[in-house]
Amino acid sequence: MILTVTPNPALDVTYGVEALRPGTTHRVQNVHERAGGKGINVARVLHQLGRPTLAAAPVAGATGQRLRQELAAVGVPTRLVDLDHGATRRSVTVVAGDEATVFNEPGPVLDRTDTDRLLEGLVGLDAQVAVLSGSLPPGLPDETYATLCRELAPTPCLVDASGPALVGAARAGAAIIKPNLDELRAATGVADPVAGARQLLALGVGAVVVTCGADGLLALTPDGCWRARLAEPLAGNPTGAGDAAAAALAAGLADRLPWPERLREAVAWSAAAVPVPFAGQVDRATLDRVRPDVEILTAEV
Amino acid sequence: MILTVTPNPALDVTYGVEALRPGTTHRVQNVHERAGGKGINVARVLHQLGRPTLAAAPVAGATGQRLRQELAAVGVPTRLVDLDHGATRRSVTVVAGDEATVFNEPGPVLDRTDTDRLLEGLVGLDAQVAVLSGSLPPGLPDETYATLCRELAPTPCLVDASGPALVGAARAGAAIIKPNLDELRAATGVADPVAGARQLLALGVGAVVVTCGADGLLALTPDGCWRARLAEPLAGNPTGAGDAAAAALAAGLADRLPWPERLREAVAWSAAAVPVPFAGQVDRATLDRVRPDVEILTAEV
Repeated sequence: MILTVTPNPALDVTYGVEALRPGTTHRVQNVHERAGGKGINVARVLHQLGRPTLAAAPVAGATGQRLRQELAAVGVPTRLVDLDHGATRRSVTVVAGDEATVFNEPGPVLDRTDTDRLLEGLVGLDAQVAVLSGSLPPGLPDETYATLCRELAPTPCLVDASGPALVGAARAGAAIIKPNLDELRAATGVADPVAGARQLLALGVGAVVVTCGADGLLALTPDGCWRARLAEPLAGNPTGAGDAAAAALAAGLADRLPWPERLREAVAWSAAAVPVPFAGQVDRATLDRVRPDVEILTAEV
Repeated sequence: MILTVTPNPALDVTYGVEALRPGTTHRVQNVHERAGGKGINVARVLHQLGRPTLAAAPVAGATGQRLRQELAAVGVPTRLVDLDHGATRRSVTVVAGDEATVFNEPGPVLDRTDTDRLLEGLVGLDAQVAVLSGSLPPGLPDETYATLCRELAPTPCLVDASGPALVGAARAGAAIIKPNLDELRAATGVADPVAGARQLLALGVGAVVVTCGADGLLALTPDGCWRARLAEPLAGNPTGAGDAAAAALAAGLADRLPWPERLREAVAWSAAAVPVPFAGQVDRATLDRVRPDVEILTAEV
């Protein structure tokens, strides 16, 4: 079973409008609502592809109830801890044609007691892999992911975070960290992705996998360094592609796949998220179609 | 007691952002959430000013629960009917400096069974006045307000609506209809407000009160025709000014105040809504300050 931990989950609300005109009133043509937040999206993809998973998160208020309800309807197994304060944040995306405008609420303030309650039920679970993913809610220190990595040991952790939380997880010996190019640059201050990934690898993390958008993945691992990509990247909405890549990397880690195979899956799952307008879902036909087309190239580092 | 009926209530969500930039991701700095919809705003103002009121509305889903919870917290008496489908709509307002951008969800589809259930508890209540207010939800016919006016008789109804629903209420003999200038023009096709109001009055409505923004009110009543306004209109956010005017007109109708006095109150309550950033609330100090400054002028019709 692959455990995902999402400290700051969201109720993702998508509004379709004809055009976004600041300063005016819009009639929303369609409303789509689903449970989100990066770790929850990872669990959704794993569940869709038949991998046993468990989505852990704190929830609160009416939006938290709605999140719980929606995950139950989809059938994703959860361990949701009810907070006695605040409300799970919403993330509202206004889609007008190809343009997406996003409003992220801050989310409820958490403290150590809340994360302790969340951890309580997770430590004895013997998950094969834990995915710690997304922003930290207000109130939690930057080292939260580092602490979780240590407390969940010997379960190997894949961490998808940014800034000091990412660096802390690397130092705490996460199995894999998965920044995107912007997050890698922001965390290291280094423009060259290979140099940035090496810098993080030197901190003690097992492997660094950088998602590079249409350029695929760059992976620095103990077994070698690779670039993996589709010869012809798919056009579409990249929302959720990073979460699908994280899901594939976690599954590959659980299965102890050789790294080139893990990267092939990560590129394929990521590409299969592109035709789907929402995060947390892949298109199976696309997945099967693109898998053989993934190029794995040894990288010079 | 003044009854308000809101067939399409909303959970009003307000986001503060630094600037609205279409196509980008925004960190919401503050979130404000309250029960809304025009009739609920009218009930909030009446309750705030110590007038017995009852807010009736259909509610559904997690957003409906939140609306119920928030009204209970404020202490507004309610008669909320739970629908077994859909979810109460949200209305999201993104505020960046002076600019407000609004996204209105459509709301759940209602049918005659739902309105019958809503009406069931209202007919025997002996309300002094009923306020029927706001857009009709998807599924309800344009004549819904006309039907409600007839079924609630002999309780006099004040109707704040637009389009065919407004015209239907006028024909059904509502006591007062309260369009704004745009709604009056759209309903009658007549540019001149006095001519438009006369046209609606001829349909059988008791009185027509037109809210004209900073120009105050125009009222065609059986006792005479007046314009009422502040010599110096207040600058600020006009959100909720129309609902405050409706609340004052309903209170004046319940108290059988002479029309000039009703109009004085309506202009004053309306102006007192301007300093408050949310609908459904007035500033008491402003109310007391501006009341003596309302000009009531006999209108030539």
